Amino acid sequence: MADLARGCAFLGSGGGGDPQATLIELEAYSGGDFSVELLDAESLDDDALVAPCGWIGAPTVSAEKLPSGQEALLGLRKLEARLGRRVDAVFPIEIGGSNGLAPILLALRAGVPLVDCDGMGRAFPESQMVILNVCGISASPAVLTDDKGNCVIIEAADNVSEERIARAVATVLGASCHLMEYSLSGSQTKAFALPGTVSDALAIGRSIRVGRDCGGDPFASLFAALKSSRQFSKAGVLFDGKIIDIQRETKGGFSLGKAIIEAAGGGARLEIDFKNENLVARLDGVVRAIVPDLITIVDRETAETIVTERLKYGQRVRVVGASAPLALRTPEALAILGPSALGIATPYQEIEVLNGWT
Amino acid sequence: MADLARGCAFLGSGGGGDPQATLIELEAYSGGDFSVELLDAESLDDDALVAPCGWIGAPTVSAEKLPSGQEALLGLRKLEARLGRRVDAVFPIEIGGSNGLAPILLALRAGVPLVDCDGMGRAFPESQMVILNVCGISASPAVLTDDKGNCVIIEAADNVSEERIARAVATVLGASCHLMEYSLSGSQTKAFALPGTVSDALAIGRSIRVGRDCGGDPFASLFAALKSSRQFSKAGVLFDGKIIDIQRETKGGFSLGKAIIEAAGGGARLEIDFKNENLVARLDGVVRAIVPDLITIVDRETAETIVTERLKYGQRVRVVGASAPLALRTPEALAILGPSALGIATPYQEIEVLNGWT
Repeated sequence: MADLARGCAFLGSGGGGDPQATLIELEAYSGGDFSVELLDAESLDDDALVAPCGWIGAPTVSAEKLPSGQEALLGLRKLEARLGRRVDAVFPIEIGGSNGLAPILLALRAGVPLVDCDGMGRAFPESQMVILNVCGISASPAVLTDDKGNCVIIEAADNVSEERIARAVATVLGASCHLMEYSLSGSQTKAFALPGTVSDALAIGRSIRVGRDCGGDPFASLFAALKSSRQFSKAGVLFDGKIIDIQRETKGGFSLGKAIIEAAGGGARLEIDFKNENLVARLDGVVRAIVPDLITIVDRETAETIVTERLKYGQRVRVVGASAPLALRTPEALAILGPSALGIATPYQEIEVLNGWT
Repeated sequence: MADLARGCAFLGSGGGGDPQATLIELEAYSGGDFSVELLDAESLDDDALVAPCGWIGAPTVSAEKLPSGQEALLGLRKLEARLGRRVDAVFPIEIGGSNGLAPILLALRAGVPLVDCDGMGRAFPESQMVILNVCGISASPAVLTDDKGNCVIIEAADNVSEERIARAVATVLGASCHLMEYSLSGSQTKAFALPGTVSDALAIGRSIRVGRDCGGDPFASLFAALKSSRQFSKAGVLFDGKIIDIQRETKGGFSLGKAIIEAAGGGARLEIDFKNENLVARLDGVVRAIVPDLITIVDRETAETIVTERLKYGQRVRVVGASAPLALRTPEALAILGPSALGIATPYQEIEVLNGWT
């Protein structure tokens, strides 16, 4: 679980919330001794009811606001009541950050398997930025629950309205709520979800720990793991330096800001803009990586991810880039979750092209 | 219908939205030729399912944003689906303003009777400020619908959370949504709703028209109607003058502001604070009327109500006060919908005491 948390943090591209809090919640609930079935999507029955899930809000809030532990199971039961049948399996709506880990607690509590897939292959700031939306699955009925027992069932006219409604409700309820959305069939899961991303996250997290604990270079083993991953095969170090400035505000339910990193001895600077997630990295004004490709800031010694809400002046970091799953790079996907959808004027370019990686 | 609209406008205490827009919608739908059964609450079956309804948002918005006409019926059908049974009758959650009239359109479309009662005996800015909340009825499940077909079902932990969630959703959907809430049984309707307020509104509206059209004094006939009304028997003119200043902003889904009225020839000034509704009237700094008693600004010639969003510099007006239903004046009710609940430091005092009316 600690390896999976580490891998989810890496895939969060700086966002998705710190998985450490979810890891603690999982250990507190289970006493550390539990098992959850990890199911390959291909083994799902075609007519299974599969429920993606995760949390919506600002990571800066969820780092401080404790959950009651009841949110996810209440949401699952309300979704089941609304649909008139039991949920057969769950998976992370986004593998990145705490949302990659959160469904394990739900799977454990509900006694259902976890499917080895997710809807984003990373984390994104808005909930319609998901491959399931690109593929035409409805987000509704979506079920939002909070720590006080409030439950809101959203039947939106479209998936962007669902995000706007869910965001508004999450914000008024304290900017950290559980959300079940985009429930779908087994056959739709096979056709549209990004396969293998839970396994990828686990392998990535394990590689960092093993590389470090075995006295080797955690970066070498991280890049080996990424190269052999199913979804994130092109990767490398974008920059190495010290954080010299962080600008940050929590606004409209999001954590917005910018991190500026300077090379040792001064000179080159990398600027990273974030909206919950790191969205674009510019080296002295030139784009070196842009959403949906992954941009993750890690500790330069341990290779542990530093999520945006934990970035601080003076941290010595490396910025690691990795290619997004191919399904996120189509024109249809980029229209929904690429730079223009996030208000960035620069068009998308593949990270491996921008950096000459082969 | 025009008389009822006029009476609802008066009972809105400046808020609840301008009933004229709802009157036009009703005429457009029905061609002006229709009938709806007005049912005395006492004739309801004890186990009938009764659904109060109305619109939530800022009157400044609903004056400009046209409804699709589908909102209320969609909300009713979703409520029925959620509760697993048909609704037997509807009534206005608030008799004041457009919300006094809106349920007639729903009754007509759904083919159900309208109950002669309401939940507020006036209009209030927040949806938990309703006698049904005072009496312990749950607002949930509440169903919010908009002109685009969005539907949000709220199952809140408490009635204040329901208001906060509904307000946040209404705001993000454009600050004008239909809301079904506080659904209750026939026996609860008999025990808790304010009886006769639809009839009272009709009588009040008719009295203004008849007084004016018959060459008489519309104020004399208005006060005669109020005196013989079931719920608003103490009434009088609080002030007569010209509007010399209006301060207004639309914020957090509410219309907030202040109107200042000066007596002819200068001198005395009446200041009215409003939050959607007129809440407190101070004559040269001395309180003359305070929520939940009614404060309505009317044209000084025609006695037609001027809702807060239509107040303008230079209007010649009379400010009419009327006593709230007794059920709103208990300590339990005042805690939920009295001055302190609306952020006003002055404690409640009966309008007839403040003005020496007998």
